Amino acid sequence: MIQKSILIISAFLLLLACGERSTKVGIYVKDINELNAAIAQANPGDEIIMANGDWKDVQIRFVGYGNNKQPITLKAETPGKVRIVGKSDLKLGGEYLVVNGLYFTEGSSPTRAVIEFAINNDTVANHSRMTNCVILDYNKTQRNQSDLWVQFKGRHNALDHCYIAGKSNRGPTVRVDLAGNKSIKNYHKITNNYFGPRPPKGGPSAETIQLGNSFTSMAPSYTLVADNFFDRCNGEVEVISSKTNFNEFRNNVFYKSEGSLVTRHGNYCIVDGNYFIGDVNSEQIGGVRLIGTGHWVTNNYFYNLKGKVFRSPLAVMNGIPKSPLNRYIQVTDVVVAHNSWINCTSPLQFGVGSNVDQKDVLPASEIRSERPIRTIVANNLVYNDKSDTYPIVAHDSLDGITFKSNVINNQGATFKYDSVLRQEQFTLTALEDNILIPSNGLSDLELYNGFEFDQITRDLFGNPRTNSNLVGAIANSTAAKPNLMDLSKYGPDWYPVGTSKTASAATHNVASTAELKAAVVAAKSGDTIILTNDRFELKSSLKIDKKLTIKSADANNRATVQYNGEPTTPVFEMNPKGKLVLESVILNGTGDTYAFASLKDNMSSLYNLNVTGCEISNFGYVLKAYKNSFSEYIKFQSTLFKNCANGLELSAEIDDRGDYNAENIYIDDCRFENIPKNIVDYYRGGYDESTVGGNLVLTNSAFTQCGAKEENGVLINTYGIINVDISNNRFLNNSVKTVARLWGAKNNTHSNNEIQNSGELVVEENLPLKLMY
Amino acid sequence: MIQKSILIISAFLLLLACGERSTKVGIYVKDINELNAAIAQANPGDEIIMANGDWKDVQIRFVGYGNNKQPITLKAETPGKVRIVGKSDLKLGGEYLVVNGLYFTEGSSPTRAVIEFAINNDTVANHSRMTNCVILDYNKTQRNQSDLWVQFKGRHNALDHCYIAGKSNRGPTVRVDLAGNKSIKNYHKITNNYFGPRPPKGGPSAETIQLGNSFTSMAPSYTLVADNFFDRCNGEVEVISSKTNFNEFRNNVFYKSEGSLVTRHGNYCIVDGNYFIGDVNSEQIGGVRLIGTGHWVTNNYFYNLKGKVFRSPLAVMNGIPKSPLNRYIQVTDVVVAHNSWINCTSPLQFGVGSNVDQKDVLPASEIRSERPIRTIVANNLVYNDKSDTYPIVAHDSLDGITFKSNVINNQGATFKYDSVLRQEQFTLTALEDNILIPSNGLSDLELYNGFEFDQITRDLFGNPRTNSNLVGAIANSTAAKPNLMDLSKYGPDWYPVGTSKTASAATHNVASTAELKAAVVAAKSGDTIILTNDRFELKSSLKIDKKLTIKSADANNRATVQYNGEPTTPVFEMNPKGKLVLESVILNGTGDTYAFASLKDNMSSLYNLNVTGCEISNFGYVLKAYKNSFSEYIKFQSTLFKNCANGLELSAEIDDRGDYNAENIYIDDCRFENIPKNIVDYYRGGYDESTVGGNLVLTNSAFTQCGAKEENGVLINTYGIINVDISNNRFLNNSVKTVARLWGAKNNTHSNNEIQNSGELVVEENLPLKLMY
Repeated sequence: MIQKSILIISAFLLLLACGERSTKVGIYVKDINELNAAIAQANPGDEIIMANGDWKDVQIRFVGYGNNKQPITLKAETPGKVRIVGKSDLKLGGEYLVVNGLYFTEGSSPTRAVIEFAINNDTVANHSRMTNCVILDYNKTQRNQSDLWVQFKGRHNALDHCYIAGKSNRGPTVRVDLAGNKSIKNYHKITNNYFGPRPPKGGPSAETIQLGNSFTSMAPSYTLVADNFFDRCNGEVEVISSKTNFNEFRNNVFYKSEGSLVTRHGNYCIVDGNYFIGDVNSEQIGGVRLIGTGHWVTNNYFYNLKGKVFRSPLAVMNGIPKSPLNRYIQVTDVVVAHNSWINCTSPLQFGVGSNVDQKDVLPASEIRSERPIRTIVANNLVYNDKSDTYPIVAHDSLDGITFKSNVINNQGATFKYDSVLRQEQFTLTALEDNILIPSNGLSDLELYNGFEFDQITRDLFGNPRTNSNLVGAIANSTAAKPNLMDLSKYGPDWYPVGTSKTASAATHNVASTAELKAAVVAAKSGDTIILTNDRFELKSSLKIDKKLTIKSADANNRATVQYNGEPTTPVFEMNPKGKLVLESVILNGTGDTYAFASLKDNMSSLYNLNVTGCEISNFGYVLKAYKNSFSEYIKFQSTLFKNCANGLELSAEIDDRGDYNAENIYIDDCRFENIPKNIVDYYRGGYDESTVGGNLVLTNSAFTQCGAKEENGVLINTYGIINVDISNNRFLNNSVKTVARLWGAKNNTHSNNEIQNSGELVVEENLPLKLMY
Repeated sequence: MIQKSILIISAFLLLLACGERSTKVGIYVKDINELNAAIAQANPGDEIIMANGDWKDVQIRFVGYGNNKQPITLKAETPGKVRIVGKSDLKLGGEYLVVNGLYFTEGSSPTRAVIEFAINNDTVANHSRMTNCVILDYNKTQRNQSDLWVQFKGRHNALDHCYIAGKSNRGPTVRVDLAGNKSIKNYHKITNNYFGPRPPKGGPSAETIQLGNSFTSMAPSYTLVADNFFDRCNGEVEVISSKTNFNEFRNNVFYKSEGSLVTRHGNYCIVDGNYFIGDVNSEQIGGVRLIGTGHWVTNNYFYNLKGKVFRSPLAVMNGIPKSPLNRYIQVTDVVVAHNSWINCTSPLQFGVGSNVDQKDVLPASEIRSERPIRTIVANNLVYNDKSDTYPIVAHDSLDGITFKSNVINNQGATFKYDSVLRQEQFTLTALEDNILIPSNGLSDLELYNGFEFDQITRDLFGNPRTNSNLVGAIANSTAAKPNLMDLSKYGPDWYPVGTSKTASAATHNVASTAELKAAVVAAKSGDTIILTNDRFELKSSLKIDKKLTIKSADANNRATVQYNGEPTTPVFEMNPKGKLVLESVILNGTGDTYAFASLKDNMSSLYNLNVTGCEISNFGYVLKAYKNSFSEYIKFQSTLFKNCANGLELSAEIDDRGDYNAENIYIDDCRFENIPKNIVDYYRGGYDESTVGGNLVLTNSAFTQCGAKEENGVLINTYGIINVDISNNRFLNNSVKTVARLWGAKNNTHSNNEIQNSGELVVEENLPLKLMY
């Protein structure tokens, strides 16, 4: 039955492979049954062509045995026109298989992976390739539901020319698995892909690429990650987490990605010729962080990076003595040579993670006291167009590191450790956006010729170092433009990147509650709704699942939204991808309703909230964030809060696994009056030194008659939050024991607060936290 | 001056290298100055010829740069006739150096190594070779003084055709160092050597070969150890300790060596085609012990091995969860295939070292609870000419191991786990001593074809497995004799092994004290001294530094030796290599002298003591062993001890690093009367589960009126000693709290003792011990 329905395209396609002509059969399939049958019968050289259209709820098991010259191909009739939607996934098993042109969107995997290079432990794929495909927003319904979008097993597999973006649930986007001898020495290639934006997850396990794990960290991997573009891959502190041996990272562009390339476990990796492009406005964008033995970091270019400590442009870590398998192996035998740091702040940091001062509060197995040894830092270049006070930061002694022929132009400003980073008066010239190349003053500088430095044969651009050689990543003062930002070089040719359609935003004037409700449903993402009447009365929540601005027509004559909904329901129900801007509105509740809340379940993506010039009163919660919800930005500005039982409740992640409910909370120029419990209850649990969020900035605000009923006795409760700034506020007559309890060992600061009759603002150097590992 | 004195041998020697003729210069040197000058001037192809004779107190620094076709050679005028004696060593630095024919003896290194393939950290040797040399008894003066006899650094170096024996001080005989990139991926070759007897050290750090250490255990090593003969290498539990990755152990013979080949740290090693030959009389001789990931154990032949648990013929260990770097990594992805175990007792042991029952007394980081996973045991053969009750021992669950096509001929006797080891009725035939090959019943058995089993292309003898293939190490029922015990195949051709000259022993009759003293000095090792008079009076110690028997002419009319020496001096001063047999002698002291004692310092080698039919009375100590002294055997038989303040004092190793003062103590058919302190005080400190000594056997003896003044209250004090057997003794009226306190978790047993009015004999399951790591 099924066999009959397969259309064998008799026009044999001619394939020119390895200089010899061979025939291949195209087998056109229209549904999963036909596809299964075609797979079952496929021979080397066959092409199975999936018909254009949506393939919904399909679990494709592509098992076949092609060969070196005649792979078996599964391809879209038209690349990008075959959409894999719903609960779908694709697993490959066998030899020499190619998947080409599929578009995974509007769905999620029903299993632990969207694409897996294995059917099961016995049947893995080898010599197989996923190319020219897209996986977009293919998220599980909640961020704690873990999966992978591409899971490598077997050997000699490839992921190339794909576009992959938008993962917001738990789990690395791409992971290479090495458990079992079938998957070691894998020589996988991850090349020429466009890794589009991945939003912050608010906790660990959101790498864009992870190679192995600590349990397989002894395995020889030999995975190559080359020529990829990482565009704002902000999932967590590690954009790439290398956890096995002999991996190579070459010629990738890390563009404004809030994290680092980290050699987390495993040893002897090569990081060569990569670009790390930062942003002056972000301290989250890192470079390379090193743990372990024998890595070579050469020819890399770091530009405009402002990340600190763990996220510093070069972070060479301290290790734990005789470290457990899953912790921090000491840095030894590492080479950092011929790299350039341009306009980075404190780019070179050594002994990062040293915490010997915490040896009384942490177990010995958590103390990173072993500084880098047998490490060479040579022939590197640092250039700052504005002087840097600390171009080198030594978190421990530098005595295990040999520094040779490293130079800096720091605009003449002095700094500590200048003996290992010599001031020279060289100049650079712009070659293209973000790229500066040497123009003058470097050619006379002598280079250090370290052990096996003769193997650094080429520079960042691939030009030979034999004739002309210089310190830094670029060997020559003349070079062709790399066209770094030509995004067409990455991902599938059929998927447009960087030419995002900016549909013109519409404005909806609403004069009645009915119009308001209708407009919220009808508006397109980006639209604005203007409240043209004085008063709106709502009995049910407004569902915010897109980008929407709601504001009063006249900021000086603000509209009131009176909410009379069921208890514990919010005025604004923040759905995945809901981004609400609320301006100049008076929100009034009935005491037991909420102003804003996330969904209780199925928060498959994040929401944002930006409130300015509003008045919020008579609610049970101003904001209630449920477990597994996450917001990247919550901003309140020039807003009055009064007579609400609770303020911002962002403490639903109580598993102490490092997760938290919001990345950034900004409160500026606000007034809080008669909020009897926490103003902010913001929690991150678990001792995990590599988590660097969340962030609370609370400034220029006034607090009166708040906190009296709070059981925990802390008005601004930020337990476990890494970055907190409380300054220029006025606390008056709040019946609490503690205004705030800050974490001194982390980036918690306070200044210029006026505190009267309101308890203390205390700083504790170390907070007791549950060990996560 | 010096230059002039160098004799350039103008008769250029012709060298045929790589098919092309080249000339080489022979430079004849007579002393260290000439040698230094010759080294300083050496060119590729040169041969520096050291004159025959003793070279005393020379520190040779052989620095030179030969090349692939023209190495620089340092050789003996006549191999073996150039003796390097006194405080001497040899270090190599450069490229393509060869050392040939030297004989290191009668001395010790003044540095940390006898031979080192490096001058310092900057100047290592590469492509260099130590060949045709001997290092014999080149011990430091005390066993706690650590050194190495051959220390590898750099890359591509070789130790071949050497004879190396007799190391008794601390430190592996041969060690490969991998700290620093210059010494990784070393591809060193240790081949065709004869590793002669190494006596037990009585504690750790006495491996014959160690490859790396835990701190460099992540390094790729690629050292090859092949075609060597290990003759009674009994230093400690690890004959070979592999601590790095990708090492290969091929075609070695482990002959009655009391230890195992252990993959202690590091991963992905190959153990292929080795012979492990045991002895029915020794439970110390082991096979292969596995820790870590990815090892392949193939084509090995295990014969007559009786080692247990850690020393079992195959010991696959349990690991520690997330093990610290220096402890026990879980076994994963290991393959054990095509091995043969012939007449071994309980050869296959899995989960060795499991100690979950000790989780209340040990820290979590010491609990080996992780059993082997992803491990394949296939196509192996077990043969017993007498049935074995437990051919497989499972110290933990076997559920992580895949067993396929393993067969046993257990003479029909049933056993547990017979589902993974199938009984078959095959037969074997003797090919030569120790070697049995298949004769019948195997050819019909199906083999398991595991992942990459096609790479097991050859068998134990190097015969192809392609045409004829069988389970076990030997693929064919016809094979040429391997001539395993043809010792001429190993070591230098000029050094005779196995043809030890047995000089005829002389007998010296002595009738006076003067004659006795003279005879002890004059006797040759192996001689016997006969006491022909009734009484001898000594005022100073007899120095025992050779093998000597002293006995009364008539066992029924025993001579008395009355010792009137200085207090705390012994009758018999046991010196390094002193081996005393004392028969039928009455030794009498003055209360404050000792019967036997080691030297206080400079015990560069061990001593043995064998006392039969004697009477020992009125001494401060029967035996006093000082720190750093060591005895392999102390035997007392049919001897009466009375009125001595102390018995055997062997508890000077109090550093709790696993060391102890004697390997074996046997006391049988003795009587102890009025020994007010310990009869035996025998101590080993430090929690080190891989130490398997010492041994005390105390049987058929009687104890009366002993122990009353002992502060520790234990008559037979064996704290920390692993093997203790106290049986068939009679304890009567000894005023002690405790007769003995045995260690239940170890091999401490007692039976059939009669205890009256003498305190208790207690067994404690776990003794508190200081953690060593």
